[in-house]
Amino acid sequence: MTHLNPVELIIRKRDGGMLTAEEIAGLIKAYTNGEIPDYQMSAFLMAAFLRGLDPEETSALTDAMLYSGEVLDLSDIPGIKVDKHSTGGVGDKVSLILAPIVAACGVPVPMISGRGLGHTGGTLDKLESIPGFRVDVSIDEYQRLLREHGAALIGQTAEIAPADRKLYALRDVTGTIEFIPFIAASIMSKKLAEGIDALVLDVKCGRGAFMKTEPDARKLAETLVDIGERFGKKTVAWVTRMDVPLGRAIGNWPEVEESIRCLQGENVPDLMDVTTTLAGEMLCLGGAAATPDEGWQRAQQAIDSGEAFEKFVEIVEAQHGDARVVRQPSLLHNRTKTIEITAPDGFRGYVADLDAHFLGRTAVMLGAGRLRKEDPVNPAAGIVLNKSVGDYVEPGELLATLYTDRTDLHEQFSSAVRKAYSLAEVPAPQKPVLIGRYTSDGWVNPF
Amino acid sequence: MTHLNPVELIIRKRDGGMLTAEEIAGLIKAYTNGEIPDYQMSAFLMAAFLRGLDPEETSALTDAMLYSGEVLDLSDIPGIKVDKHSTGGVGDKVSLILAPIVAACGVPVPMISGRGLGHTGGTLDKLESIPGFRVDVSIDEYQRLLREHGAALIGQTAEIAPADRKLYALRDVTGTIEFIPFIAASIMSKKLAEGIDALVLDVKCGRGAFMKTEPDARKLAETLVDIGERFGKKTVAWVTRMDVPLGRAIGNWPEVEESIRCLQGENVPDLMDVTTTLAGEMLCLGGAAATPDEGWQRAQQAIDSGEAFEKFVEIVEAQHGDARVVRQPSLLHNRTKTIEITAPDGFRGYVADLDAHFLGRTAVMLGAGRLRKEDPVNPAAGIVLNKSVGDYVEPGELLATLYTDRTDLHEQFSSAVRKAYSLAEVPAPQKPVLIGRYTSDGWVNPF
Repeated sequence: MTHLNPVELIIRKRDGGMLTAEEIAGLIKAYTNGEIPDYQMSAFLMAAFLRGLDPEETSALTDAMLYSGEVLDLSDIPGIKVDKHSTGGVGDKVSLILAPIVAACGVPVPMISGRGLGHTGGTLDKLESIPGFRVDVSIDEYQRLLREHGAALIGQTAEIAPADRKLYALRDVTGTIEFIPFIAASIMSKKLAEGIDALVLDVKCGRGAFMKTEPDARKLAETLVDIGERFGKKTVAWVTRMDVPLGRAIGNWPEVEESIRCLQGENVPDLMDVTTTLAGEMLCLGGAAATPDEGWQRAQQAIDSGEAFEKFVEIVEAQHGDARVVRQPSLLHNRTKTIEITAPDGFRGYVADLDAHFLGRTAVMLGAGRLRKEDPVNPAAGIVLNKSVGDYVEPGELLATLYTDRTDLHEQFSSAVRKAYSLAEVPAPQKPVLIGRYTSDGWVNPF
Repeated sequence: MTHLNPVELIIRKRDGGMLTAEEIAGLIKAYTNGEIPDYQMSAFLMAAFLRGLDPEETSALTDAMLYSGEVLDLSDIPGIKVDKHSTGGVGDKVSLILAPIVAACGVPVPMISGRGLGHTGGTLDKLESIPGFRVDVSIDEYQRLLREHGAALIGQTAEIAPADRKLYALRDVTGTIEFIPFIAASIMSKKLAEGIDALVLDVKCGRGAFMKTEPDARKLAETLVDIGERFGKKTVAWVTRMDVPLGRAIGNWPEVEESIRCLQGENVPDLMDVTTTLAGEMLCLGGAAATPDEGWQRAQQAIDSGEAFEKFVEIVEAQHGDARVVRQPSLLHNRTKTIEITAPDGFRGYVADLDAHFLGRTAVMLGAGRLRKEDPVNPAAGIVLNKSVGDYVEPGELLATLYTDRTDLHEQFSSAVRKAYSLAEVPAPQKPVLIGRYTSDGWVNPF
């Protein structure tokens, strides 16, 4: 390419102009190589944040980040490989339930996940709460797992999209995180590098999510699908509600334990609505069902027949996890201390609301998450909600059980958890968890 | 002050919010100390560029930059100290003529100037083309010069506004130069550090200036005056036209030589209109005249009487310059080679326009200026225009004389200089050089 003048590109974007795909590729390549310093890239990021990136520029950014590292080729593994990505929410253990369901139905699931940061958890931390479970496998091992077991749940390797890691670290310290084209390019560059054929996206929306408002969530969904389709991958996005925690467990092992019960047939509302809807989409994209509805039925059958649970056991064993605790979760019950939070005097009524963001932050304080990347997590820490939205509560009843080693903060935690609850005299109308479905054909709103 | 979170300040500005004076002070101090890295400051600069800084924020930024270094106290030197600052233009040698006029009339002129960069020259480079002239004097020496000779023409010392130097270098490589609040804060922090009591500003406007349009120039003038008044300094700004070069000489020694002739009474139109108008303002601000008009008359008298020229000789001698070449400029005529550019065939008519920016860039190529800070300059290099706007030209007549050591580029220079000329069959109406005068009382437009 021709000589790249970073100041010229910064100024053009600053003044509302467009960059060509070649210019964006050159910029990202030079930044990743260290030829463009952080201070120029951060000025560019802020200019783009405030002036915008159009769909072509966003796609070019994704492409540049994708090809900054290794792009896996899974074409010699039979089947249509379909992954699911969630933008992250509190109690979001959908991947743990979804992957074995879809794999059990014969659609390969190549799933590269991240760790938790801030008030939301990460799939890797959850998986690692199963003793022995290894997520740091080589690319060769990843392909072998996928071929032999139909699923591989691993962590991002250093070879995948290094530009994204470097850019994310810079965005984090320069106030340029919350910009839909950057968020979308970051997600899609990593997902496209996995070697997928199709992708289902769960864009969380609400108080406990990164996207607080429905218009933002819808815009992100549209941007993600647009990028996926530009790269020739069938992409479906669901916007789902994340005002209250998904399911009743928050924290790594508590969420695995809830996932096991769901795979064994327990119907946790909202959580299983999201899980089976996304599973239906993946089975349809993967060719195992003619329609998402048929896929939904196939998913339900895989749970009912026990195949999904057995696939989960198989995956855990294949990735060196202790399958005994999956079959008998109580084996791990002694791993931490518990605090039982009861409803105080005057605490009476129907649970009308439960603040997911607030509970997510409390779970971090309990040891379930991290505020900084280098913080350790306590795999057993977390919250199990005994009372959730719609339940009736009376003083003295158990509201929630906390798992933590920080029992010195008992009073603080009790107060925090009680504050997350809003009560009402009559049951509040429930808001549907599924908000809207977006594909290249447009929006479908189920309710 | 309370703990400073740079990301929070970046995000607030990014989202269109305001920063307090304390926050801006903290930000600039931490940046100057190296506690805030370049990549965070550049994100902040771009956010401010695109979201704006209001007058309070601009004033706070000026204050923070001003107090990042030494603020001189000239209060024990008698008289009202008045300086003039120009935003820079092609052939702008006004300071060289103005300072001795004003000092000769009894108003002390503490003038700290900069070097040329890009297509415009700098006062320091011009002064240094006088053999022996020293601009790198200590603060003590500066005060002594001012006390004994009524004027000191020196370069910015390391003690003056170090934050401005660091910020300017960052702005230069991050596309954040052309923003009026930054430009104004940069100018005013340095001027206020000089110890002045009042200030006259020459805001150049047009093709050969930094501000290309009249609205931008007027906005900068207003911002500069607003800052000056907020700091308790009487401030007057003139917006003056910079489409064609000011005077007929471009380049360091050529401009000194033209300045000497003006101090000896030659009336170079436009150049002397600007100079005597600004001198009148300074004499009024300095208490040597009741009105700017009376000041203008006093300035004219100082030239006519020879006092201004003798003051110039005195200043040159006081700063170790060779006064012989000031009294007899032809002594330096042999310092470089000359190229005479004549009007080619068909080149006939009234000079309707002369592109100052183009000629400024050509002068840099001749050796008169620098494209990068570290470039050397040839003090003798430059352009003397034999034909300027309004003159009639016929083929074969001398258009301009170039002074340069790069005689190998003869053809290229000839072609460039000819291209700067626009001819017309009838004389074009002359545009007035003085566009508008701004003080805290508002605008006065002379024509």
